[in-house]
Amino acid sequence: MPGIALNEDSSHYFMTRANQPLDAGKVESWVDQYADTQVRELMLNPNAMRTSYASKVWDPIWRGYDPQAGDDQPLLASLAPADRVTPRKWIHTAWQLHQDGIDVYEHWIARCRRRGISPWISMRMNDIHYVDDEKCYLHSEFWRQRPDLRRVTHRFHAWTDRAFDYGKAEVREYHMALVRELVERYDFDGLELDWMRFGFHFRPGHESEGIPLLTEFTAEVHRLLDGWEQKRGHRIRLGARVPSRPQTALGLGMDAVTWARRKLVDMLVITPFWATIETDMPIEMWKDLLDGTDVVLAAGLEILLRPYPAFPGHPINSVETARGAAAAMLDRGADRIYLFNYMDDCGLPYSELLHQVGSLETVAGTPRRHVLTYPDTWAPGEPQAIPLPVPCSAGQTAAFRLPTGPRPDGGEVRAILGIQNDTALDGQAMEVRVNGELCPFIGAAELAQPRPDFPTYAFAAPPAAVNRGYNLIEVTPKREVKFGWAEFWVRP
Amino acid sequence: MPGIALNEDSSHYFMTRANQPLDAGKVESWVDQYADTQVRELMLNPNAMRTSYASKVWDPIWRGYDPQAGDDQPLLASLAPADRVTPRKWIHTAWQLHQDGIDVYEHWIARCRRRGISPWISMRMNDIHYVDDEKCYLHSEFWRQRPDLRRVTHRFHAWTDRAFDYGKAEVREYHMALVRELVERYDFDGLELDWMRFGFHFRPGHESEGIPLLTEFTAEVHRLLDGWEQKRGHRIRLGARVPSRPQTALGLGMDAVTWARRKLVDMLVITPFWATIETDMPIEMWKDLLDGTDVVLAAGLEILLRPYPAFPGHPINSVETARGAAAAMLDRGADRIYLFNYMDDCGLPYSELLHQVGSLETVAGTPRRHVLTYPDTWAPGEPQAIPLPVPCSAGQTAAFRLPTGPRPDGGEVRAILGIQNDTALDGQAMEVRVNGELCPFIGAAELAQPRPDFPTYAFAAPPAAVNRGYNLIEVTPKREVKFGWAEFWVRP
Repeated sequence: MPGIALNEDSSHYFMTRANQPLDAGKVESWVDQYADTQVRELMLNPNAMRTSYASKVWDPIWRGYDPQAGDDQPLLASLAPADRVTPRKWIHTAWQLHQDGIDVYEHWIARCRRRGISPWISMRMNDIHYVDDEKCYLHSEFWRQRPDLRRVTHRFHAWTDRAFDYGKAEVREYHMALVRELVERYDFDGLELDWMRFGFHFRPGHESEGIPLLTEFTAEVHRLLDGWEQKRGHRIRLGARVPSRPQTALGLGMDAVTWARRKLVDMLVITPFWATIETDMPIEMWKDLLDGTDVVLAAGLEILLRPYPAFPGHPINSVETARGAAAAMLDRGADRIYLFNYMDDCGLPYSELLHQVGSLETVAGTPRRHVLTYPDTWAPGEPQAIPLPVPCSAGQTAAFRLPTGPRPDGGEVRAILGIQNDTALDGQAMEVRVNGELCPFIGAAELAQPRPDFPTYAFAAPPAAVNRGYNLIEVTPKREVKFGWAEFWVRP
Repeated sequence: MPGIALNEDSSHYFMTRANQPLDAGKVESWVDQYADTQVRELMLNPNAMRTSYASKVWDPIWRGYDPQAGDDQPLLASLAPADRVTPRKWIHTAWQLHQDGIDVYEHWIARCRRRGISPWISMRMNDIHYVDDEKCYLHSEFWRQRPDLRRVTHRFHAWTDRAFDYGKAEVREYHMALVRELVERYDFDGLELDWMRFGFHFRPGHESEGIPLLTEFTAEVHRLLDGWEQKRGHRIRLGARVPSRPQTALGLGMDAVTWARRKLVDMLVITPFWATIETDMPIEMWKDLLDGTDVVLAAGLEILLRPYPAFPGHPINSVETARGAAAAMLDRGADRIYLFNYMDDCGLPYSELLHQVGSLETVAGTPRRHVLTYPDTWAPGEPQAIPLPVPCSAGQTAAFRLPTGPRPDGGEVRAILGIQNDTALDGQAMEVRVNGELCPFIGAAELAQPRPDFPTYAFAAPPAAVNRGYNLIEVTPKREVKFGWAEFWVRP
């Protein structure tokens, strides 16, 4: 079974377990929900710019925190009063556990081993949440004091402008110090360098110069882990999270193919950043590139699902859409499904999720949705391919291609189209074909969430016309429409 | 020296040498202009849907031609009277040479060998010029009689709808018959299967089913060539022209990576179709994919240069823009520059072109232009990345990334931007940076062709800021503008 790797971020536990009595046993019990599921690795993330444990080389999240003072204390003062409550939960819970002598990660690692889960540490390499607020509690003093080490210093258009510039030796050394501490402090099975928080590590236009720097950084971590394997008495693996498309990864300075071919990494997670799950990641291209290596290729699923960047709100995946994405990825050759931001309060039926999306066998027989989305990460200046929304004139044909995984045998398949500028459509309004075969109009699609606010319509795809892998919707409307949603709904 | 491979199409010679006395020596002398240049291979294309030689298995271009009749004869009757003259030149010249017992390709192959050029035959695998006119002289009777063998039968939106469907065994066999004839008839060094005329070989949505079919077709041709090597007494190589990006090639049914890894092909040409030269083909991605094979990777340069699909007219490359594209491709690792539609009446200073673009050494020291264009070929339903034109609001930043080849040492580099909705711009109107460094405003750019009709402005890139490989232009205008052109002009 390919299985699941699941990322637990550095704040979620502390926020959601605030105001509860926590002892070591209670802390460890968090792991148990993943035991005897398809989760093979828990990727424990202990840091953003600060750490949720008592780091000696970086700032712990509670640096500057006064447990006796009110929410208006200096550490939280930059936030609006209403926004201080949740951060304080994180800070206070982490502080209290530290006071109580409980190292959460140490306990989780131990419990993982007892429950048959492989424990990893996932280090965020350049987290820049809320850097629009220089005084925000999240930031390290080093980051605050050294604006000269940021990747863009002459403007502020986006959080990523204020990411650290790994072109600078001080930045690399600062991050390597945390790597060293993590390796020394924790006995994990693997260390993941999470380059996708937030994915931008060099001055714009200097990414090519960055390629050998990140490769050497990776090689240094690899050597460090090699050195610890004897002390630990077991292998210590190295992983990395990188952009979903090899050309974009390279364009951002991450030469993941070279890392794999030089045997520096054992696992690669390809993933969008955050804005949406990316349902058409080029798995087979990566497999071709990784051919001859033993690298585990994990397909990274984010929790949000947007059809296009300006889509309103924060719609999250359902089990059906997560199954759809996973089925397509696994069928294309992914060795693992990697869940990011699918933490235990994510709102999905959790046990179902954890028992299904890690294997084609457990997805088989269940309904699944394959929704057209887009890649949310591009190198600076890289041309972007974003298929929706798209206008289509009367008599012209719009085409949408989606990978839908294994061929559904004898089930029902619907092509679903959402139209932004329409409120009512009948069976004569457009001709829809799947792989060239005419699809009868069914009517308004009754979609569960996630779904758009504009109308969606369903068309019956002849089961015999549906392929394994890519399937193509071609639609020819009789008057101009603007498509904002495209999907295959599959009930095997 | 990487060198040049040059494609000569099946009509150009016959049209341009009409009404001249042609004997064998005169025909052969056409080759001489390529001798002692950087041209290493002449890729002689003898067919579109018909052949320009006396094929026994396909229709020669003169099938149905009456040399005594006027231009209004049935073969040309579907054309407007004014449009009959040039086609008749082709038809008549090819017919006359056949009457005179002169096989152009046989003579060219012989002359190539005497002049140190490697002769190849390049077969177009699915040419569909002018299929909007079913009666056009260009078409084979087989194509006319078998509309059931076309890839789309229920509509006609584009020429590609009427391409043959290689999913059908009859289509593969029909084309294999011409392969066999060519191999038997001509003693060439290599055979190229030109899958980029026109690039669409399967029913939309059936490309994945096509992958094993084209791979087996390629394998069959490879076996055929193997069998002829002993008879010919020399190796016979196999090549293929495929889309510029591996994911698009695969999405159109062309698994070029598998062809290479199975040692079925010796040369791959990656190329756009026709609408524009593609200045940012992912050479290093292909090199990574071809690693461990001996395949020669050729970068295909088309003659046109458009910044975006709707750009008016048919602007062609200059030597400067061709040098720019070639310099970038060679520096990224291309093993050959492949010129398509750069025939001897293409309007460029031909000797200069043929002596320069095949090597970084001969490009060095000459001015070159790196113009932002776009990929013109996408699989059905594949999301398209087309960077221009792009609007940019006041205070926002637009970014354009261009590969510019070797780092210019001590020369002059200008970033040039064209603005569609502006007639006059001064030095205060926008801030331009290259790789983060401010670029002083120079003034209106005085571009030679190709250039847009709208205004272009030049900014001085500090030479020390310019990288080898990718360089990034970031521009922040003070009021809303729409960019329609982006370029680096380099004088080393």
